[in-house]
Amino acid sequence: MLLFICINATAQQPIQERLGYSKETKLLIIHTDDLGVSHSEDSASIILLEKGYASSGSIMVPCPWLSEIAAYAANHPDADLGIHLTLTSEWKYYKWDAVSGKDKIPGLLNSKGFLYDDLDSLGKMAKLDELETELRAQIEKAIQCGVHPTHLDSHMGSVFFNKDFLKIYLKLSHEYKLPCLLNVAAFKMIYNVDISDIITDKDVLTDNVFMAFPPDNNAQHITYYTSMLKDLKPGLNCVLIHAAFDDDEMKAITQDHPDYGAAWRQNDFNFFSGDACKKLIADNNIRLITWKEIKDKLMK
Amino acid sequence: MLLFICINATAQQPIQERLGYSKETKLLIIHTDDLGVSHSEDSASIILLEKGYASSGSIMVPCPWLSEIAAYAANHPDADLGIHLTLTSEWKYYKWDAVSGKDKIPGLLNSKGFLYDDLDSLGKMAKLDELETELRAQIEKAIQCGVHPTHLDSHMGSVFFNKDFLKIYLKLSHEYKLPCLLNVAAFKMIYNVDISDIITDKDVLTDNVFMAFPPDNNAQHITYYTSMLKDLKPGLNCVLIHAAFDDDEMKAITQDHPDYGAAWRQNDFNFFSGDACKKLIADNNIRLITWKEIKDKLMK
Repeated sequence: MLLFICINATAQQPIQERLGYSKETKLLIIHTDDLGVSHSEDSASIILLEKGYASSGSIMVPCPWLSEIAAYAANHPDADLGIHLTLTSEWKYYKWDAVSGKDKIPGLLNSKGFLYDDLDSLGKMAKLDELETELRAQIEKAIQCGVHPTHLDSHMGSVFFNKDFLKIYLKLSHEYKLPCLLNVAAFKMIYNVDISDIITDKDVLTDNVFMAFPPDNNAQHITYYTSMLKDLKPGLNCVLIHAAFDDDEMKAITQDHPDYGAAWRQNDFNFFSGDACKKLIADNNIRLITWKEIKDKLMK
Repeated sequence: MLLFICINATAQQPIQERLGYSKETKLLIIHTDDLGVSHSEDSASIILLEKGYASSGSIMVPCPWLSEIAAYAANHPDADLGIHLTLTSEWKYYKWDAVSGKDKIPGLLNSKGFLYDDLDSLGKMAKLDELETELRAQIEKAIQCGVHPTHLDSHMGSVFFNKDFLKIYLKLSHEYKLPCLLNVAAFKMIYNVDISDIITDKDVLTDNVFMAFPPDNNAQHITYYTSMLKDLKPGLNCVLIHAAFDDDEMKAITQDHPDYGAAWRQNDFNFFSGDACKKLIADNNIRLITWKEIKDKLMK
């Protein structure tokens, strides 16, 4: 069964009203994660963004293909692109390190000089000042490369891993005036972190966050997303997708890694570029929204 | 016309005799450069190495696929793999930085934190102590990742660029007891650097170095390599090839870059994996040799 994260848990004024929409409006960000990780991911995601099938995406700054997506961002200033803050390097044979000089953030790197494979190692080894240094460096490097970031979120949810990490995430969100992906219920359920006491009116809460978790099965994928779109509630919804092609590059990157593979990514691309998805969005009166609109209206 | 580097210019005892062969022996290292740069390059080169079509190869330590070729090296301790010392990151959208912490080697990195695109920038900006730090770090990182290096050479000939760089290259060769690619005439012709006065009897000179330079043309490629094999002289010869597949990954990496593209690499793979090459080697009494044999016999 695919995991379904869908719990509304905010005490703020309904965000759709804060954004100038009626209380009944079903807002949806279709968000392509992992930009910059590979040419395959960039190519598939750029198609979704260009054709309006995805409303937003976010960039992994430490990854080898950063320059490709940064050049796209520089040439498409209206593209809705944020920073997918990255503190892990999880694939078997395809690795990256951090953006900060490694002398500055030794606690974030494994013995071979790469970011850790997994969240547990990161959680145990990271020092908070180093974490802040690296996250800040990723935002700055993206800007330097021509990206005008519209929001923040986090690869593998690494900055949601504990409350201390989350406080740094919020600090950077406030400092750069960038909305960031926040969902009280999902963070509680997945990371066992209660953020309700550190959220203020300055923060933008996403009411519902969706993602088709592995194990992958194309039929389940379609069923999951179809139900999600049919049952979408009024408020701000965000679906996290990972669009890439099931090609040699993506297969090689994701080899010997449980889940989140090339076929899973191709299925995401197929569903969101398909006519069925477009029809479901129209039939269910779903309004796609960008992080940029949220930033411009709520983070001035 | 393809550039033909073929000038014998060593005053040492013929190296084939130092290695225990007759004076008439035509020794040839078929050397696959650029391992670790991409999955495509690794996959094609590993086929050549596994089947004995190539005798040797060298690894770009700062590149994203280092872990793939390092795992291969660790699992194949007899594979003849050296370090392709890398001080440039020349592709448009696919970039890497250095292995040393960037605080240690600021003069080797451009404003975006990547190694320079070109040799001229490197030559102007590099400080010698930083260069030595980085080259040493690349050798050490390869060893730490499971590689047992058999030799040194250099990506884009960056360490052949001037005499100061070359002295560091020789220093590391002596210190690690690794033979390194050296050719007096080629260095003079391509880099305008005369190394004849810094070479000693400790050093192994390659008599002739060959490479099919772009612009690429498959018929020219075949003609060039066929002539090279037919006309090969006694002594130690080395042909530098760049084997990869003309696939989406390699096309994307080499896009908008003059020369050295995916098709050029596929042509190298095709020629050296083909029956014609095998027959030319046999018919012309050419003996393939590894850097490991040279290391074991001459660098103890």
